[in-house]
Amino acid sequence: MAGESQKWILMATARAPTNIAVIKYWGKRDENLILPINDSISITLDPDHLSATTTVAVSPSFEKDRMWLNGKEIPLSGGRYQNCLRELRSRAGDFEDENRGIQIKKEGWNKLHFHIASYNNFPTAAGLASSAAGFACLVFSLAKLMNVKEELGQLSAIARQGSGSACRSLYGGFVKWTMGNEMSGRDSKAVQLANETHWEDLIIIVAVVSSRQKETSSTSGMRESVETSSLIQHRAKVVVPSRILQMEEAIRNRNFSSFARLTCADSNQFHAVCLDTSPPIFYMNDTSHRHDFCHRYLFIWRFKGKTQVAYTFDAGPNAVLIAPNRKVASSLLQRLLFYFPPGPDNELNSYILGDKTILQEAGIESLNHIEALKPPPEAKDKVPSQRFAGDVSYFICTRSGKGPEVLMEEEHALISSQTGLPK
Amino acid sequence: MAGESQKWILMATARAPTNIAVIKYWGKRDENLILPINDSISITLDPDHLSATTTVAVSPSFEKDRMWLNGKEIPLSGGRYQNCLRELRSRAGDFEDENRGIQIKKEGWNKLHFHIASYNNFPTAAGLASSAAGFACLVFSLAKLMNVKEELGQLSAIARQGSGSACRSLYGGFVKWTMGNEMSGRDSKAVQLANETHWEDLIIIVAVVSSRQKETSSTSGMRESVETSSLIQHRAKVVVPSRILQMEEAIRNRNFSSFARLTCADSNQFHAVCLDTSPPIFYMNDTSHRHDFCHRYLFIWRFKGKTQVAYTFDAGPNAVLIAPNRKVASSLLQRLLFYFPPGPDNELNSYILGDKTILQEAGIESLNHIEALKPPPEAKDKVPSQRFAGDVSYFICTRSGKGPEVLMEEEHALISSQTGLPK
Repeated sequence: MAGESQKWILMATARAPTNIAVIKYWGKRDENLILPINDSISITLDPDHLSATTTVAVSPSFEKDRMWLNGKEIPLSGGRYQNCLRELRSRAGDFEDENRGIQIKKEGWNKLHFHIASYNNFPTAAGLASSAAGFACLVFSLAKLMNVKEELGQLSAIARQGSGSACRSLYGGFVKWTMGNEMSGRDSKAVQLANETHWEDLIIIVAVVSSRQKETSSTSGMRESVETSSLIQHRAKVVVPSRILQMEEAIRNRNFSSFARLTCADSNQFHAVCLDTSPPIFYMNDTSHRHDFCHRYLFIWRFKGKTQVAYTFDAGPNAVLIAPNRKVASSLLQRLLFYFPPGPDNELNSYILGDKTILQEAGIESLNHIEALKPPPEAKDKVPSQRFAGDVSYFICTRSGKGPEVLMEEEHALISSQTGLPK
Repeated sequence: MAGESQKWILMATARAPTNIAVIKYWGKRDENLILPINDSISITLDPDHLSATTTVAVSPSFEKDRMWLNGKEIPLSGGRYQNCLRELRSRAGDFEDENRGIQIKKEGWNKLHFHIASYNNFPTAAGLASSAAGFACLVFSLAKLMNVKEELGQLSAIARQGSGSACRSLYGGFVKWTMGNEMSGRDSKAVQLANETHWEDLIIIVAVVSSRQKETSSTSGMRESVETSSLIQHRAKVVVPSRILQMEEAIRNRNFSSFARLTCADSNQFHAVCLDTSPPIFYMNDTSHRHDFCHRYLFIWRFKGKTQVAYTFDAGPNAVLIAPNRKVASSLLQRLLFYFPPGPDNELNSYILGDKTILQEAGIESLNHIEALKPPPEAKDKVPSQRFAGDVSYFICTRSGKGPEVLMEEEHALISSQTGLPK
């Protein structure tokens, strides 16, 4: 505690990426500790395009823990926040800033309250793993603030208790969440398979179909699957372990064809298990079926006869498409824009977000260029060249990115160092 | 052969029902003999509403085997027809009609050709098991004509070689197709679990969503599933055997709640395995999803808090709904007609087919009554009361029905006894 009860405020700000699973996490063996029934593998997405930024502040003047998400105060009473806070407090270190006369002993953190402000640069709870980025960022920034001396792996096991897939957002590049064996969950944590420079050619295009909140939360969805699906345990015990080994090898060798095959198959199997749940869970809506239609007929199976693009769908209708290189990505984007042109009120700048150089490479500089796109050559035979304007809210072009980082500059802080409240 | 080469024509006409699986057949272990990877159970539907009628004719004047389906000549060269014909010819008996001076020896059938005319009283290849009724009827009528002295079980094993699920259409009521063990397929045949009078209360409503031919044939679909799904073998070897026992018990005890739970779960699992196939197979379109929406929220899970209606979807978008009694069925029909009223060009008589007494019981005597239907009481809270006019082509109200039967009256024959050609 501070020597005198001055009104100091101590802050830390960090940014953490989201991630997209290519071998899916679906099903817990322990609801409270969030221990999964199988390993999973994800790609960390570039935080410039999809990330959470969080400022955590502590002050003797704060009377209770408070949190603001995207500017709106939300309750911090949830068990998951409390679990993360408790774990971090128990690992907190001494802190001293002689200049400002601040001294906090390890034990002192238990008596201090936090103000937390977090902001996602993408829609919350629309199946884009916003809680993954959010909890990774919360844990990472609090660990920084409280001087927690744990390696990232242990922090990932703490973030896991906030939101399972958050543990994979503690690293950049390609990340495996090992399910672990221990009852305590200590060994259920993330490990980095390769960093973000390992396979830089990959281009990821996220088609955001709807920013409405999804119907079934993944928490209740996976609980219902574990309770009622007669296929999920076979998936977890037999199918996934073999796929994890194959996927690690595909990533190690940058074998796109194998990577794409496994990614698509595992996405389909995850949705198959959802459908095998009672009552069945449908996370894909009609637009993503049309996407699948595109993948299936235009890219995956017919485009020069080999797997050109991988797709994966999380617990929402959005499609995540992964191309092996910029050339295929720009060709993919042309086709996507042909089938899913923007609605009447869109501008090009707000319809394609993220890395816009892919757009340039596709030769599209204005809405007129989208208008003028010709049906893809492969559409002639079987596929009607119908266009679905407005079905997609926007596309995000991105890539594999780095893990969480501390933002030192005051300008990034979301909380005022004067008031202790969101700026 | 006839003593002299007179121009006699010998005919037989039969009618055979279709059936709807409640524990699904999906996946073959032998493509040629059509041997399945698991047992399945079906309900035979009332042939008055859904059946095939087939006339088979034989004459020394016929120069080759010919067949007409719904009035249109189709090739008989397919291996499946040939397999059925070969099996039946090898079991044919002597035939003699002294009055007409016709005598055919066992061996003589090999030298005679057939004319076959078949007619379905429902759309072909729209996921309504038209090939089941068709092959059951073909085999049954040919067996009659050729004086084949086999019991129904053995005939079902022959029909199986035409279309797997056809074997289940050789019996009325509730039928199990036992997968069998023998390489020859002799023991892969249908057995009747209970006849059509055993559970007369059940009312079956088929919502025909589209009479277009389905996109993926079930033959190629199940082949792809067996080759690529990593869940299908677990389903076949572990899940289905246990469900078969439970379903037999539910049928034996007329336990609707258990029957409905198993039926819905198995339909969902069949579609889950289709989704787990590479490339994935989607048999359900948006309208059937809306149906599922109805089932899930209006009937199965909220309607007085217990399972009131079972649903099952075959390899097509049509929904088959099963109600435990007329009271629930009329209440179901009211709700269905509220959500899926007829399109502008429909008449009530062509929109509700089959047993129209359910319609009377639901108090609906004109299109105006459908127009005036109020949203179901349970729609208030969560479900938007949007209506989808024209999404359903028509409804068929039916029930469990009897197995194949010979039609003796000349008027039922589809082939002219004078010309040997379709009437």
